[in-house]
Amino acid sequence: MAALSSRLFPILKYNLTNHKSVCLQRSLLRWTERSFSCYASNCQLQGTNSNNHVLPGKVDRFGGVTVDLSDRHFPPDVTESAFHVLLQDSLRQWRVDGRVAAWLRVPISQGRLLSVAASHGFTFHHARHDRATLSLWMGEGENRLPGFATHQVGVAGAVLDEASGKVLVVQDKNKTKNAWKFPGGLSNLGEDIGATAVREVFEETGVRSEFQSLLSVRQQHKHPGAFGMSDMYLICRLRPLSHAIHFCTQECLRCEWIGLAELAQTDATTPITSRIAKLLLYGYREGFDKIDLSVEEMPAVYSGLFYQLYHRELPTSYKQP
Amino acid sequence: MAALSSRLFPILKYNLTNHKSVCLQRSLLRWTERSFSCYASNCQLQGTNSNNHVLPGKVDRFGGVTVDLSDRHFPPDVTESAFHVLLQDSLRQWRVDGRVAAWLRVPISQGRLLSVAASHGFTFHHARHDRATLSLWMGEGENRLPGFATHQVGVAGAVLDEASGKVLVVQDKNKTKNAWKFPGGLSNLGEDIGATAVREVFEETGVRSEFQSLLSVRQQHKHPGAFGMSDMYLICRLRPLSHAIHFCTQECLRCEWIGLAELAQTDATTPITSRIAKLLLYGYREGFDKIDLSVEEMPAVYSGLFYQLYHRELPTSYKQP
Repeated sequence: MAALSSRLFPILKYNLTNHKSVCLQRSLLRWTERSFSCYASNCQLQGTNSNNHVLPGKVDRFGGVTVDLSDRHFPPDVTESAFHVLLQDSLRQWRVDGRVAAWLRVPISQGRLLSVAASHGFTFHHARHDRATLSLWMGEGENRLPGFATHQVGVAGAVLDEASGKVLVVQDKNKTKNAWKFPGGLSNLGEDIGATAVREVFEETGVRSEFQSLLSVRQQHKHPGAFGMSDMYLICRLRPLSHAIHFCTQECLRCEWIGLAELAQTDATTPITSRIAKLLLYGYREGFDKIDLSVEEMPAVYSGLFYQLYHRELPTSYKQP
Repeated sequence: MAALSSRLFPILKYNLTNHKSVCLQRSLLRWTERSFSCYASNCQLQGTNSNNHVLPGKVDRFGGVTVDLSDRHFPPDVTESAFHVLLQDSLRQWRVDGRVAAWLRVPISQGRLLSVAASHGFTFHHARHDRATLSLWMGEGENRLPGFATHQVGVAGAVLDEASGKVLVVQDKNKTKNAWKFPGGLSNLGEDIGATAVREVFEETGVRSEFQSLLSVRQQHKHPGAFGMSDMYLICRLRPLSHAIHFCTQECLRCEWIGLAELAQTDATTPITSRIAKLLLYGYREGFDKIDLSVEEMPAVYSGLFYQLYHRELPTSYKQP
């Protein structure tokens, strides 16, 4: 096992000698002796040539290599200088192997290794909870790595009571300009559009409702409060299942059922609310098929998961092959 | 100035004494003597009580406080133990002041401070390029901080040549199952939906086109390749401005103009392509007003920016107040 250690990590050994780091040596021995074979069996190992000293990584089908520093076999107390040399040698080997990208998954507890990676050209790709993912493009020409999520998704619900012709609107508490708008808010990760609309309407107003259709999509870049990202805002048509208002006083100043025709006419609203009120009024008078996008759940080809597809209603005769 | 330093940073001084860190002392003096007044004038300072030792931060209208460690006056060589004490005291004071959240902006070069922040409960909110943003909820009840972007946005273009009734389709090179689909790809940050469709169609096929309408929206969670995030996929109807195909051989195996009726019938396609081909055929035969969402640029109320709003065409008589 000592031979394996010295074959795979001669430069680390060199560093050990220089730095007399008993701590690192112990960690490396732990990594190699106890669990290296296990770690290796789970990874497609890079640099099998005995002259190389390369971080074990997984190769993806796009020609990138990913190293997870939160792997339980990665020595938690590796010195920054040892990591610097190891990363340098790994990058050299990955370039020889024709890898086009390197990815590092770094737990927040190993934050001190981030500046080492940055000195080799890595930057943050994204970070969530207790882990950051860094990337480095090593291919020819410009960086072709996929970016991280660029949009937050907000959903509003236009709850229309068809019997009375009234629609549920709120005034935000925290805005300087009080204007009627449809209740809504940001989607949670993994939440369907219709589910966000129903949840947000209930949380803000106390009114229960069910999804009917998608009415409108808005895209806005440099959206305030989106941390430099863009905003996709969807407005749904909902049907009320209850009518009593118990609005959230932390978020709303007022909450009322008001006539749809009145909302479509008033100046005390936002441009988008006014426009959607007019659209909703058109559908209310002429038929909702004039304004609705219906939703259908369909199977994804490769993942085996399902997705929601929204578009104009298609006559049944066209749906059949 | 030495008095100011000791008034604001007595605990740091205490640490200096213990650690005999001449380096940190020099940095702190630089921070305080050279530019503290400048830094302070740009921030709403927390903890003006002389017994407190608090990181200078900006307070937002939601009651959170943000400290930017990439500020040029923040001492770059602060020790982790000194930062630990300073952050501990800052958090104590912010809680006294009723702050509901704390945000830390940390440059990648200061990555070693991340584990210190994590030990106080901070987690990654997001990270891009050379900077991470950490957050800590200090209010009552569950975390009410807004999340970061949750969706990548992809756009496909269905380029229909009305004269011939043919539509432009490709087969991906990297998929195991070859199926005709509309060319498309991920939006760049800040890029409008229609612009992505036109750009991606040109990059993949060499065909120039212009945006006509939005046809469909798909939402898929746990999307493969989206780093655990969701995918919003929009399909646009485009009109060709050129017809000669020069397809990207890196991305595509084949690229052709094929009859819309044939695409709507064939099994050699994906479920979503088949469905949209049928929708497009319906619009081609019965009028595109049956299937289109039109787009309009409208002004945002608070930011002074503009957004793109998509919905069914609204009769002019309804658009006027």
